[in-house]
Amino acid sequence: MATYSILAISGSLRAASYNSALVRAAVELAPADMRIDTYRDLEQIPPYNGDRDTESPPAPVLALRERIRAADGVLIATPEYNYGIPGVLKNALDWAARTAIGVPALRHKPVAIIGAAPGNFGSVRAQLALRQTFLWTDSRVVVKPEVIVFRARERFDDAGNLTDESTRALVAELLVALARLIALQRTAGDAP
Amino acid sequence: MATYSILAISGSLRAASYNSALVRAAVELAPADMRIDTYRDLEQIPPYNGDRDTESPPAPVLALRERIRAADGVLIATPEYNYGIPGVLKNALDWAARTAIGVPALRHKPVAIIGAAPGNFGSVRAQLALRQTFLWTDSRVVVKPEVIVFRARERFDDAGNLTDESTRALVAELLVALARLIALQRTAGDAP
Amino acid sequence: MATYSILAISGSLRAASYNSALVRAAVELAPADMRIDTYRDLEQIPPYNGDRDTESPPAPVLALRERIRAADGVLIATPEYNYGIPGVLKNALDWAARTAIGVPALRHKPVAIIGAAPGNFGSVRAQLALRQTFLWTDSRVVVKPEVIVFRARERFDDAGNLTDESTRALVAELLVALARLIALQRTAGDAP
Amino acid sequence: MATYSILAISGSLRAASYNSALVRAAVELAPADMRIDTYRDLEQIPPYNGDRDTESPPAPVLALRERIRAADGVLIATPEYNYGIPGVLKNALDWAARTAIGVPALRHKPVAIIGAAPGNFGSVRAQLALRQTFLWTDSRVVVKPEVIVFRARERFDDAGNLTDESTRALVAELLVALARLIALQRTAGDAP
Repeated sequence: MATYSILAISGSLRAASYNSALVRAAVELAPADMRIDTYRDLEQIPPYNGDRDTESPPAPVLALRERIRAADGVLIATPEYNYGIPGVLKNALDWAARTAIGVPALRHKPVAIIGAAPGNFGSVRAQLALRQTFLWTDSRVVVKPEVIVFRARERFDDAGNLTDESTRALVAELLVALARLIALQRTAGDAP
Repeated sequence: MATYSILAISGSLRAASYNSALVRAAVELAPADMRIDTYRDLEQIPPYNGDRDTESPPAPVLALRERIRAADGVLIATPEYNYGIPGVLKNALDWAARTAIGVPALRHKPVAIIGAAPGNFGSVRAQLALRQTFLWTDSRVVVKPEVIVFRARERFDDAGNLTDESTRALVAELLVALARLIALQRTAGDAP
Repeated sequence: MATYSILAISGSLRAASYNSALVRAAVELAPADMRIDTYRDLEQIPPYNGDRDTESPPAPVLALRERIRAADGVLIATPEYNYGIPGVLKNALDWAARTAIGVPALRHKPVAIIGAAPGNFGSVRAQLALRQTFLWTDSRVVVKPEVIVFRARERFDDAGNLTDESTRALVAELLVALARLIALQRTAGDAP
Repeated sequence: MATYSILAISGSLRAASYNSALVRAAVELAPADMRIDTYRDLEQIPPYNGDRDTESPPAPVLALRERIRAADGVLIATPEYNYGIPGVLKNALDWAARTAIGVPALRHKPVAIIGAAPGNFGSVRAQLALRQTFLWTDSRVVVKPEVIVFRARERFDDAGNLTDESTRALVAELLVALARLIALQRTAGDAP
């Protein structure tokens, strides 16, 4: 039985997305005691509207929050759009960051960040912006390793398999770090 | 006849949004030779999907791009969600920043930024993130004055009218700066 | 005997600095099992030069690194200069982040950040920039509470005593969070 | 006679600095009507201290401010230290951004940014941080092209000559953009 259950979210809706491919690689590379489930309903999340953020939010929002709450940790794969977080991903986080009842789903939640982009610097700026957002939500974000898959074309085959060995090793290392962070939170209580 | 036509976009979908109220104030405070039209279809913009960003993008996207192209400048009113740009606003900019045909609507476009938030620092971080995005799009963003309406509750009346005189003066000053930037681009050619 | 020994660094050289005053307040507000020593040699740190960052670095650099290594945690009080970290503070961190021998002094080091500024938003942007730097150093930075002392003039008396009760409570809360982070690292091993 | 006089500042003190080498390349690549003088006294700038920022600041500060004032534009070459601006460079800008008499030297000053680093992403984050600082100073910063010389080792020969043709072309293009920005400011008045 899996000791660590992770919810993975790819910030891209493209069918052939490198970030979705990176999530698939993470599923394969997860340690034996980790199960990574992939969130596939990003497109269903409505645009954030404070007036609808009530005790009865839209059903896809409720489902997203529940899945984050149920998971031990979250893995985010972020493209970089226009030097920032894709709006579609940020919009989902905007809903996940709040709640009209109880504690927001992301509060103190262990999080790991990965990201792929076609260009030389892609995802560097998006990942920094994501870390800034997780500061607000008071999530627990793994610091190292940073997994920044630049020039993604060179690291995946045509079927979307992550073939670059050093990137595979880095993703595996990140998942171990995420597991350690979760374990630490369980045994020793939450870190500030 | 208006010499400067501006498209204003509020990044909030709330009915009683301070940022939409700030846009209404800007409409009133515009100099005589400026007309500000308010974009009201933010909620219709679908989530950005590179696979749909073709020569025939979704109709609301096409309309947004056309309106930005037709305007001499853009005024953005941004809330701050989770230390960043609201996903819903960023998503619209993600579409506006690209195009499968011709030149992206935001390229070299004069832009002015305003923002309101209930808290002490609200909108500071979102405005910095917006400026980073407009760097990618190579837009022409007014530098000063920065209009950061913190503790918005104290500056609007219950009907959503901007009552704070110093904020009104600042918005008016920003619009004059936007007009000057447009005029400069017209007479002297575009700045790098 | 103190269980937690903290090195506090104020990023300002002004005699009447609010940030140095904030450090003095922290010394008073520290929990009984914490001792905060104040670093006073910032002005002696030479400009960072990679050619001098050898096995025999300048004496003040060696001393700074040793004091950070010897401390259980670091408390940084940062002014904001020109929307960023004061150069003088960043320069000291540039030295502390590296080492020609062994492990850099800041690696995995628990860190807490405070900051004061005269203006409305002062220190918000500097604190975000600092967090970005501590990401590189792989330090362990307390996330909450954030202690951002804006309009500092209203919160200190003329002798530089922090008189604002809610700010005092916040500083005390931050120091407790720093102690918990150190305790966690001791008992459970380091967090990723 | 040169029409455009530029002051170039390298943010690194290393003798074999890639950023100083990049400045030397810029001197060579400058258009015929531009003269680039290199600032060489960065190491002499004392740590910023508000108490010394009076009508009689330290002599090297006075000289730096005068040289920036006398120049038509400024070229900054920035390394990236710990995901940010080198403290030594930021410290010089902290002095240049202020003044006890008259207008700060950087106000409305045309600025172009370049940067080199050994790693894959080096200088990306430093350049964004620099742009944030020049927002405060209300300088006029060239937006495109961005000149981010990553894996610098591959682009310079052992004598520190910039040998990479595409980088040389990019630097030349940036200098032309800087000249155009200065020309625009002269003929049409300052942009907001």
